[in-house]
This record gives sequence, C-alpha cells and structure tokens, in this order.
Amino acid sequence: MAYGRHFLFVPGPSNVPERVLRAMDRAMVDHRSSAFPAFTREILSGLKELARTTEGQPFVFSATGTGAWEAALSNTLSPGDAVLAPRFGMFSQLWITLAERLGLEVRVIEQEWGEAASADKVEEALHHDKARAIKAVLLVHNETSTGVTSDIGAMRAALDKYDHPALLCVDGVSSIGALEFRMDDWGVDLAITGSQKGLMLPPGLGIVWASTRAVAAQAQAEIRRAYFRFDDMAASNEGGYFPYTPPLSLLYGLREVLQMLLAEGHEAIQARHARLAEGVRRAVKAWGLELCARSKGIASNTVTAVRVPDGIDAAAAIDIAFRRYDLSLGGGLGKVAGKVFRIGTMGDINELMVLGAVAGAEMALRDVGVRISPGSGVAAAMEYYRSIDPAAD
Amino acid sequence: MAYGRHFLFVPGPSNVPERVLRAMDRAMVDHRSSAFPAFTREILSGLKELARTTEGQPFVFSATGTGAWEAALSNTLSPGDAVLAPRFGMFSQLWITLAERLGLEVRVIEQEWGEAASADKVEEALHHDKARAIKAVLLVHNETSTGVTSDIGAMRAALDKYDHPALLCVDGVSSIGALEFRMDDWGVDLAITGSQKGLMLPPGLGIVWASTRAVAAQAQAEIRRAYFRFDDMAASNEGGYFPYTPPLSLLYGLREVLQMLLAEGHEAIQARHARLAEGVRRAVKAWGLELCARSKGIASNTVTAVRVPDGIDAAAAIDIAFRRYDLSLGGGLGKVAGKVFRIGTMGDINELMVLGAVAGAEMALRDVGVRISPGSGVAAAMEYYRSIDPAAD
Amino acid sequence: MAYGRHFLFVPGPSNVPERVLRAMDRAMVDHRSSAFPAFTREILSGLKELARTTEGQPFVFSATGTGAWEAALSNTLSPGDAVLAPRFGMFSQLWITLAERLGLEVRVIEQEWGEAASADKVEEALHHDKARAIKAVLLVHNETSTGVTSDIGAMRAALDKYDHPALLCVDGVSSIGALEFRMDDWGVDLAITGSQKGLMLPPGLGIVWASTRAVAAQAQAEIRRAYFRFDDMAASNEGGYFPYTPPLSLLYGLREVLQMLLAEGHEAIQARHARLAEGVRRAVKAWGLELCARSKGIASNTVTAVRVPDGIDAAAAIDIAFRRYDLSLGGGLGKVAGKVFRIGTMGDINELMVLGAVAGAEMALRDVGVRISPGSGVAAAMEYYRSIDPAAD
Amino acid sequence: MAYGRHFLFVPGPSNVPERVLRAMDRAMVDHRSSAFPAFTREILSGLKELARTTEGQPFVFSATGTGAWEAALSNTLSPGDAVLAPRFGMFSQLWITLAERLGLEVRVIEQEWGEAASADKVEEALHHDKARAIKAVLLVHNETSTGVTSDIGAMRAALDKYDHPALLCVDGVSSIGALEFRMDDWGVDLAITGSQKGLMLPPGLGIVWASTRAVAAQAQAEIRRAYFRFDDMAASNEGGYFPYTPPLSLLYGLREVLQMLLAEGHEAIQARHARLAEGVRRAVKAWGLELCARSKGIASNTVTAVRVPDGIDAAAAIDIAFRRYDLSLGGGLGKVAGKVFRIGTMGDINELMVLGAVAGAEMALRDVGVRISPGSGVAAAMEYYRSIDPAAD
Repeated sequence: MAYGRHFLFVPGPSNVPERVLRAMDRAMVDHRSSAFPAFTREILSGLKELARTTEGQPFVFSATGTGAWEAALSNTLSPGDAVLAPRFGMFSQLWITLAERLGLEVRVIEQEWGEAASADKVEEALHHDKARAIKAVLLVHNETSTGVTSDIGAMRAALDKYDHPALLCVDGVSSIGALEFRMDDWGVDLAITGSQKGLMLPPGLGIVWASTRAVAAQAQAEIRRAYFRFDDMAASNEGGYFPYTPPLSLLYGLREVLQMLLAEGHEAIQARHARLAEGVRRAVKAWGLELCARSKGIASNTVTAVRVPDGIDAAAAIDIAFRRYDLSLGGGLGKVAGKVFRIGTMGDINELMVLGAVAGAEMALRDVGVRISPGSGVAAAMEYYRSIDPAAD
Repeated sequence: MAYGRHFLFVPGPSNVPERVLRAMDRAMVDHRSSAFPAFTREILSGLKELARTTEGQPFVFSATGTGAWEAALSNTLSPGDAVLAPRFGMFSQLWITLAERLGLEVRVIEQEWGEAASADKVEEALHHDKARAIKAVLLVHNETSTGVTSDIGAMRAALDKYDHPALLCVDGVSSIGALEFRMDDWGVDLAITGSQKGLMLPPGLGIVWASTRAVAAQAQAEIRRAYFRFDDMAASNEGGYFPYTPPLSLLYGLREVLQMLLAEGHEAIQARHARLAEGVRRAVKAWGLELCARSKGIASNTVTAVRVPDGIDAAAAIDIAFRRYDLSLGGGLGKVAGKVFRIGTMGDINELMVLGAVAGAEMALRDVGVRISPGSGVAAAMEYYRSIDPAAD
Repeated sequence: MAYGRHFLFVPGPSNVPERVLRAMDRAMVDHRSSAFPAFTREILSGLKELARTTEGQPFVFSATGTGAWEAALSNTLSPGDAVLAPRFGMFSQLWITLAERLGLEVRVIEQEWGEAASADKVEEALHHDKARAIKAVLLVHNETSTGVTSDIGAMRAALDKYDHPALLCVDGVSSIGALEFRMDDWGVDLAITGSQKGLMLPPGLGIVWASTRAVAAQAQAEIRRAYFRFDDMAASNEGGYFPYTPPLSLLYGLREVLQMLLAEGHEAIQARHARLAEGVRRAVKAWGLELCARSKGIASNTVTAVRVPDGIDAAAAIDIAFRRYDLSLGGGLGKVAGKVFRIGTMGDINELMVLGAVAGAEMALRDVGVRISPGSGVAAAMEYYRSIDPAAD
Repeated sequence: MAYGRHFLFVPGPSNVPERVLRAMDRAMVDHRSSAFPAFTREILSGLKELARTTEGQPFVFSATGTGAWEAALSNTLSPGDAVLAPRFGMFSQLWITLAERLGLEVRVIEQEWGEAASADKVEEALHHDKARAIKAVLLVHNETSTGVTSDIGAMRAALDKYDHPALLCVDGVSSIGALEFRMDDWGVDLAITGSQKGLMLPPGLGIVWASTRAVAAQAQAEIRRAYFRFDDMAASNEGGYFPYTPPLSLLYGLREVLQMLLAEGHEAIQARHARLAEGVRRAVKAWGLELCARSKGIASNTVTAVRVPDGIDAAAAIDIAFRRYDLSLGGGLGKVAGKVFRIGTMGDINELMVLGAVAGAEMALRDVGVRISPGSGVAAAMEYYRSIDPAAD
C-alpha cells in the first residue's frame, strides 16, 4: 500500500505539471476539422519561439527522441555520407549507432566520459576535411549519461572558421526547454528533442527543428524514409494539418507547456534549472562525492551525475532508494554503469522536492555503506536555497 | 510561475491521492436509478468497518465536520439539556460554542491547552451528577489545534464506573481513518468526522456514526432539525438512496478511499501515521523546540504542534514557508496563535515528503531568526526513517 | 460491459462540462493561506453577477439545496412566524415541510400540480394580512417536479401593492444559471440554489443570496442555527476566508462555471435553455402527449414533465430507458408518480444530445405500449433545431 | 460558447472511454525501475490475446499506424523485393506508396474503390509467380476510406493453395479490437494497428504483431531501419523494458483498454460493432442513399461510407454538421472526395450516441439539399435497436 507522491528524479521522464495532465485529459477531436489548423499553428509557432528560431521549421512526430534522431538524419543525408561525432557518453554513442544503421560513415572523436564535446577536436577534424566529405556534425548538447553540457556556439565557430558546409545537428533532448538553446544564433541546422524532459510531458513526441539549409538538403538526401518525412509533414502542416493522425493528447499537453514556458521566459527557465541543480551540486560536495562531469563549468543544470566511492555499487543504492524510500534516481549507463547515479532536475519540481530527493539519496547511500555525515547534503542545499530568493522568479 | 508540487502540510485538508482524484473525476449519474443502491451500500458498509462498529449506523451529509457536530447533537438532544465538555483547544472550544447555539447547557471542564482531556475530571463531574442531568459528554479525540490525542477508552470507563447514561460523543475529525478508533469497544455513541483529514478527500462530507442508543435518542430529541435529520437519511439509506441529491463526486472518492484504507488494515494505517509523525517529532527535538503537547504519550500522530521560542512570531515563519518555499504549515489558533505552528501528517504523504516539509520548516524558522543547526531536523528524521523499514508496510 | 456516454437527462444532477471536471481535478490547497482570499472574492463577485444583484450577499455552504432552504429561513425568521407558501408540486411541498420542522407556521395556498404559483392568491392572502403576521413568502421559481416556471416579478408586485414587508424567498434551484433571474429587479430577499442544476456542477453546494433586509433580519431571527450561520460566514468571507474548511473541489468548479456562464451572458444562457427545451416540447407534441404544465407560457425551459397516457406506467418506461437504452429520465414525484416522466435540459448538453435522449424516450415509450409514430418526436425536434441557428450563440 | 459533448463520429480517432482517460491521467514513473517489467508483460500478453495469437510477438512503438506499416515492412523485407498489393481505397494506396518509398517493388492489383480485396486476383497473381519473387502480400483488412471489410482467411487460402511463402501482411488499423481478427487461424505474418480506432485510445501507438516467420525474416531483411527495429525492441521487451522511453500515458491507457476488451470477449466486441453499424446502415437505407461498399456482405462494422446524390457536395454537409450541429463526420478521401461521407462506429459509443449522430447527419444532409423524409433515418435505426436487446451484451 503506497501513499504519497513518488519522487521521480530520473533525467526523464520528468514530472508532468498537474495543469498539463489536466490539459491532456480530454476528449478526442476530429484532426481534419476546420477548427484544427489554428491549434496546429499555435503549437508550431510556440516551438519556434522555444528554440529561438525564426527561420527554423519545427516537425512534430509521434515518436521518441530516437525517432527524432532518425528523422533529422534521414531527411538530410545519404547512405555513405560521412558525419563527424564526438563520443563522450551513452547518448552520443547511441546516436552514432543509429547513424551507422542508416548507412552513414561516422567519424568518431573519442573522448573521456565526463568531458564535454571538444570544439578543438571538432575544429581539427574539419580542418583536415579539405574535401568537404563531412556532411554533418552530430553533437549531444547535454549528455544525459554524464551530466555534461557542451558549448554549441563553439562548434558553430569551428565550422565557420573553415567555412565548412556540414550541417550542425544537435541533440537537445535534455536541454531544449531547460538550458540555454539558441538555434539561430548558434547556426544549428537540426535541433532535436523529445517531450519527456524539459518539456515536462509524457514521452511520445519526437521534435525536430530544421534550418533552411537542412530543409533544402532533403532534395539530395537518399536515405530511405517513409514515416519520418519532412516533405509530407511540411505539406500537411502548411494547411494546419498532419499527414496522419497526430498524437492529440500529447499535442494538447504541448500547447499547455508552451504557454507555460513562453510566459515564464527563456532567462527565467534557465535560472530555475540552474538554481535547482546548484542545490544538488552543493549537496554532492557536502557529501564529499565527485561529479561525473570533469569540470565545474560543464556540469549540467538538468541532470547531475554523481560518482560513488570505489567499492560501492551505485545500482544497489538506486534500488534501495526506489524500494525503500519511494525515490527514482537515474542509473549509470554503459561505461559508468554501477559507478554513478543521476539526479534529474527537469520538469515540474521545486526546492522542497529536490531537498526530499537529496534526503532520500543520502539515506540510500548511507544504507549501502557510503560514509556521509547525516544531513550534510540537505543542509548544504538548504543553505544555498535560503541564500537566494526563489519567490522572485 | 510556480513549478513543482506545493507541500501541503496543514492538518487538513490533507493531500488527496492521485487515485482518489481520478475516482472523483467522472460524469454524474442519476442518484435515483436502480443501479445506485449498490453504491450507497458499499459506502455505508465500508464506513462501519472503518469506525470498527457493527451496530453503529453511519450518516453521510453534504457538509463539513461542523455540520456533523450539529447533526450529532441536534438528532439526540433537546434544548436545555446539560452536556459535559472539556475545553483544551480550539476545536473543543468551537464545539462548545456550537452546542450552546443549539440551546444546550454546556458544563465546561477547563484544561490547559496542550493537555489531553482529563478522564479524572470527567469522572468527577459524572460522579457528582447524581440527577443524571448530563445527557452527553463531548470529547475531541484528537485536538487538532494542539496536536493532542485523548484516551476515549478511559472516558467510557468513567461513564461505566457510575453507570452513567450520558451519550459519549466523540469528535474524530482528525483521528478516524488515521489513529486507533474503536467505536464499539469504546462504547462511542456518536462519532463524527469530515472528509478532508484521515480520509484524504476534499472537504465536503460530514459523517456521523450513531449507536443504537443514539439512534433511539431521536425520539426524545427536541432540537429543531431539518437538513441534518437522521430519520430522513436512514429512511432513504434503507433503500440505498439519499433524501436529497448526494454529493456524488465526493461519494465516488469516498468509495475509493474506503477500498484503499480497508485493504491496508487498521493496524497498518495507525503504524503509518505513527511512523510519519515520529519523524517530525525527532526533527522538532533536534531543533531544540518543544511540542505543544504537554507529554510525549499524548502527542498526536496526525498533527504535530510546535512551540516557537519566545520573541519569535510563528505566523511570520508560516508566511515565509508559504511564499518562499511553497510549503503550507498550520498556524496557531486561539490561545496559541503566533506561538505554535503545526505540521499535519495525514493523507497521501510519504517519508520524503515529510523530509521536504521538515526542511522547508527549518529554512523558514532560520529565516525568522530561530537558531537551529542547519540540517539537524532533517538529519534526525532521516536517521529515524532509516532505522525502520517503511517498505515492510 | 457498458460503452458510450450515459445520457443523463434527469433534472439534476446535470451533465458537468469536461472543462469543469478538469478544474475540479486538482490538488488541495491551504484555505487559510494568504493566496486564498483572491479566490474567494472572485467566486462571491461572480455569484452576485449571476443572480443580477449588486446589494445581495451570497453565502456558499457545503450542503445541498435543502440545506440552503434551511439557511435562508433559519437566519431570518423565528419559531412561530407565519410564512405564506403556494403548494403546487413536490419541491414546494418539501420546502413547506422543512419550514414546519423549523417551527414556522406555514400558511399554505393549495394549487393544482401543473399550475404556476398564483400571484392572485398570494396577493389575496397578503391583502387579508392586515396584522402583517406573514413574515415571508416562499416561492419555488421553477417547480422541478411539474416543469413549471412561475412569475416572481408578479409576486413582488403583489407585495408592493400592499406595501407588505414579508421577505420574498425564492427557490431558484432549477432556475438560477439557466432561466431569467433578476434578484434586484424583482426585489428578491432570499434566493436559493444548489450546484447540480443550472450551475452544471456536482451536487454539494447550497447557495443563498440575501438582500440587505434579509441580512438585517438576522438580528431578530430566533430559529436556532449553528452550521448555517450568515454571521459567521459573512465575518470570514469579509477577509476572503470561510469559517470552516470549504468544499475546495466544488469551489474550483464553481469558479470555472462562473467564468463560463458570465462570459456567455444572461441572454445567451436563457436562449440556450429555451432552444433546447423547445425541441423537447416539439417532440412531445409530435408524440401526441401532454405536458404536465397546464399552459404553454409556464412550461419550464430547464425541465419538461410529460404526462403518459392513462394505463401506462411512466416508471416502467423510465426503467426501460435506463436499463436498455442507457438513458436517465426523471421520474414523477408525489402526486404525479407514475404519471409523468421528466427530461432535464440543464447543464452541458447540446442539440444532438437532446435528440439522442428524445430518441431513447421514444423507444422506451413504444416499448411500454405508448402508440407513437416511429421517429415523429425526433423529426419534430430536428426540424425545429434546423429552423434556428445554434452556431450563432 | 460551446456546451455539450461533441459528437465525434469520424472513423478515428474514436471516442476514448472516461475510464481510459482517467487511467492515462497520472504521474510519470521510472521506466527503468524494477517495478516496470510486470507492467510491460501485462500489456504484451494482453495484445497477444487481442489478436488471437499464441506465437505472434507484439511490438509497441511510439508512432502511428503509418509507422507500424513501416516497421512491419522494414524489419522483414529488402529493397527490390516484390510485394503484391490490391489497391481499392485510400489506405491501401498510402501503404503502397510507403512500400515504394522503402524501395520495394509493388505489384498492384487495381480494383474499384468500394470493392473488397479480391482473393481471386491475389490467387491468380500468386499462381503466376512461379519464381516466388513475391515476398509479401499487403492487405488492408478494413478499408477505412470506403467502409469495406475483406476476407483475410480467403487470402491465406490463396497462399496455401500454391504453398506460396510470401508473408501475409495485414493492416488491421480499423479492424483489430473491433472486428473478427484471428492472427493464428488466418496465418497472418504481420498484423498492424494503431491506438486510436478499435482500441479507443488517443493516437500515438503503432502496434505490430509478427509471426515466427516474420521475426525470422529480420535476418535477411536489408531495408535500413533504426527507430523501428524488432530486434532492439524484442531484446528490451524480453526483460520487461523498452529500448527507449516508452509513451507511458498511452501504455497506461492501453492496459486499461485491454482489460476492458478482454473481459468483454471477442464475440461480444464483434456483436457490439455489428449492432451499432447496422443501425447506421438502416438509416442510410431509409434515407434512400447508397453505401460506398459495393455489396452488403462487405460493408464494414467499424465505418460506414455513404454516397451522397449526384450534385451534392459531401464536404459541404460535413462542414455544416461540424459547425452547426457539433458533429464530426469523416470526409471522402482520394477518388471519393466530395462524394461520400463516413460515420465511424468504433470506440466508446452507444445506441443513443449513434442516433444523435444519425440525426445530425440527416439535418446536415437536408441543409445541403438532400431530399430526405424528416426523421426517417433515425426511425429506422431506432426500430432496429428496439428489435434487439442491447442490455443483454
């Protein structure tokens, strides 16, 4: 018999606001009626503002972020095309695998997990690509597995330095709607996200924004595509419709989320995530533990990956947190499995929820033998939150 | 722009489980259809089990606990009747006022706020009532204003000692569905509750259970009554209906709550509330503050009233908690206004929610100048929760 | 296994709009927080506009319409006071019984069920009341049992003609929020409604509007009252609060309903109900059946009571409609039990829903042997709806 | 200001039961927790029972039916493979287009729109395929654009007659969960559906069931696939998980729907759809209009496509129905655009809802000049519904 709200602090799905759940809890409508286009247009317009783009064209698929990865690549590239991709965590790795399955030749820049994507190495690779064989650069903006945010503006600068025409493809799955993301300013050609992270929705939407260049690339792109087609989607969206029955509940939720986020404003959104995550980092420091992120400046404000001491199994702590304290933490993936646990700070959460989660993590860590001074993490986070004024946001 | 769940830790309304909100979120039905009686009967039967009575008859009114107070008295007593009532907190005081408004002569036993109702003093008063003028004893089982639980069994013993026929009337508003409550074993004649405390529902139901003696008392009872009539209600309930349109949404919620609570079982319910409240008390002790309850044994498991140090305004801390930390704490009422704050631990909450609330209270207390070692309260509660096994419940 | 929406066409509870259900489906809040008064004030202000009053003071009780009846009388009258009341249906009868239980001396004007309240007979009674013994006139604006709407303005004129000081008490349970209701213009002193009719909410709110004279009458009123006290409610409402925990879910729903209705406007609301009910009346006429209402001008736009032919049991038709066609119709009450069935046209309904209900009623009537030309009722209602333009509302 | 339930009678999305909406209206969970596999397994097990298969393996994608089409083909075929496909409506045409986009060589059997897929022509084509070049036969079980149901068992017989190894691929989008569908008995290799038709869910799930042969075909299949991979999905599902964040809300809804449908039973489900659709057909006949389906035996029980008289624009009637009567009807697609309108009878509907929709269609048809005797269609449907006993289901 379980009472109380489960503390969902995985880095996705995030907590859905009650208001958004209510917006989704409604009867279906005819998606071909004359009333529908106004709804479609409100969503598409809001999505542009969310990614800070005026020319970028948003495409909303019934899919996950993985589907959006595929949509981005298959509509713009051809089998055999070379793409450049730093590999520095689980999601960069998975995207590389997907690109290979689509027939792309992926030139991988290997980096340590916990580092940010290296603009220097990308620049170097582009510098040597005299033949302009590289058609796209794939970058994970916020590597959810290690809690690391990379500098997309620096990547654009690297491309610009050599006037390189490769498409700048950015996985913004755990950044868009939460971290600073400037599609136009950064010259992003393909931006990608899912619904269940910063957008605070249930999973089920894969969203791609394509720049004018990316849209134009369809003409040459020869990867076979059927479900994920920009052209069909664009043709239907033009009239305010979708080429096949769109996921209505999620779209109603998306409209509500866009209204909330755009009313809040980009700076306030970023400050909110920064504040919540900083509380977590203060707790980690007070516990005497290390972040997975190799340097402070790259630590993500949407997910904090924490290394456990040698000899401790992070998975055991996560399981105790789940079963005993009603707290879901993210596990370590791939290379860092068992070595890290992750605390997501996206979605509908506030300071006291974070403090409850920090308390739960601390209890679970102590249960598996990590030597932590009781209450130290919570105290550090509390004092940080007291030092600022959340009510002012 | 507010994100995250508000931490509602007032002693009512309590947090409503998502499952119960969903059960209430439904279309209306015809309350006079042939399908309705089965629904009514399920609820009435569950209410009997909840109060641990086989003979007691439950009456569900569209009202609050205040309305249920009136229903209990007006159906069983006559203007001018003497009733005995200890006054030891805000709710005993309000009930006394209501009884006086109904024309009853209330013989008040004055006690300190923070004490439990004194069985000795009740016994003494009954002993002197040779003429059996006292027709009822009014007891608040759990005084929500001071966080004190009284011993109803001892009151029954006092009545039995002198074979006194007075009706034993018990306000179980913040006890039934949370604390031990044994209507039949304790010989309670009128038990009273509302929907918004242990029953975890929105406010709007006033519930009275009447013993056979209380039901029989209607025949002589001369307080004028119209809306709150046991006879009309019983006559309609007999057939599975209500004398006027019942509050359907709340009844659907009540059915769900009864299913949850009865599946959990009385002992588990009590243990759950004891565990959550004990964590709060550990925090209070670690803060170096005092409970409003004068002795440990009478401290309530549904609401903890905490005295703030002299010179500190509890209301200021409560307001900061609300505005700055998204936490609702209960304020001091009547004699203890400004001197106490209260933390309710009824309804749909769990350990991490309590820890978040404790953290929020600690921050607010520090904000208004209470000298508390940062994290001390949370640490004490955490270590207590770690020492037991909530997952075993 | 039941699929599809049940057709709820009883005259209350009415169908709750999905939007209102969603507004109610939310977490509880602290009703004593500093944020609460704004919410209270929005509701009270909207209620005044709804009843078209500037001086009238609304009181919202957790109760049903029956409770609101009691509140209206007990706060303004004293035991032994004479009140005048036409009896012409079940609800006027029930109100009379309630008044008697409160100790009032009810001077009943007997009328046929199916007639409207007679302003002539009221006037005559007032004329003979030289001693001004009559302290109040109790009128059911829309008698839900017979589907008859009475002329309240004419009642005011009767009072004014003799400058009679009796309070004009109007049961607006099935009229306010649906039919024309002008508290100030008609000089209504006490207006009463419940939540589950024109207000399209679940049952659970009893609402009374009191004129300045009615509010002042409290000072002399000696009916004992405790739960239903205007003074306590007014004192708390003054600050934006309630004297006891208010029924939060229903209040959230009420706010939403008020926003909907006031945005729609009084004239549009009345036109909507007139249009829907006229469709039903066209069907009844096409069936060759009679209304319970004795003349066309008094037929209610919120509920249509239909007489079945002699030898037919209306209850049997209603039961078939419920079990076989998933349609709830209202039954005949009191004197007209078995002789009439009723179709409510309040709440969240539209033309096609009415047509479905008319079709269901027709099937059930044919099933019990009423000779009706198949499709005749639906055809008449359809042609009526086609002749007007609902989209223009 | 719109009141009442919109009458949604398009052939998808269908009406979602209130119970299912409630099941979806809940907080997110960690899809990687130890509690999740039991949930996954309940769904997969229920899906097998729904399609009447013991060996077939269900795959649930966050996608629409179009995505499920792609998943079915891309996991089992290679570019250049020949597939056989009758084209007899919009959805068979769209699937053919999709197959071509995936690089398949589609051998199209052209048929009139309104006919069922011809087993004879399929058989003939297979007969001539001595080289066994045809790797798959693509059949739309229920052509939603024309309201025609084809005989899948006859197709299996055709394949068996020549012992042809082609995979039998069946689009069951508007049949599974509503019409008879026997995956094992009919030897279906790939069955496909979406969530928003017979499954009564919002759009957003694309579901494929693959036979052992189809699963094995992956080994040779060379169509590039990344998002829609059976192997990744099967590997994760094996442990009770998903390879990427699954669409949790829809999965919660799916579990609820499966519980409803499987408790109802296949025969009852089919009888329900047959009954509702027959009422519509009786109305169409009474109106004097023709079905799009060329013969009675092939008329679909999930969608009825109705031809309007020459000179009438079906789209105009549909638009009037939407704007004036709050009724959504399906439009004509492709070759029959403007010539037909469609009434879907899937999802959460009942007899009175169908009668309301029939009434609305009749009003709209009369509004655009179709000469129909008022009430004739409704009367015919009513008399049909009266002749059977829906309560017995």
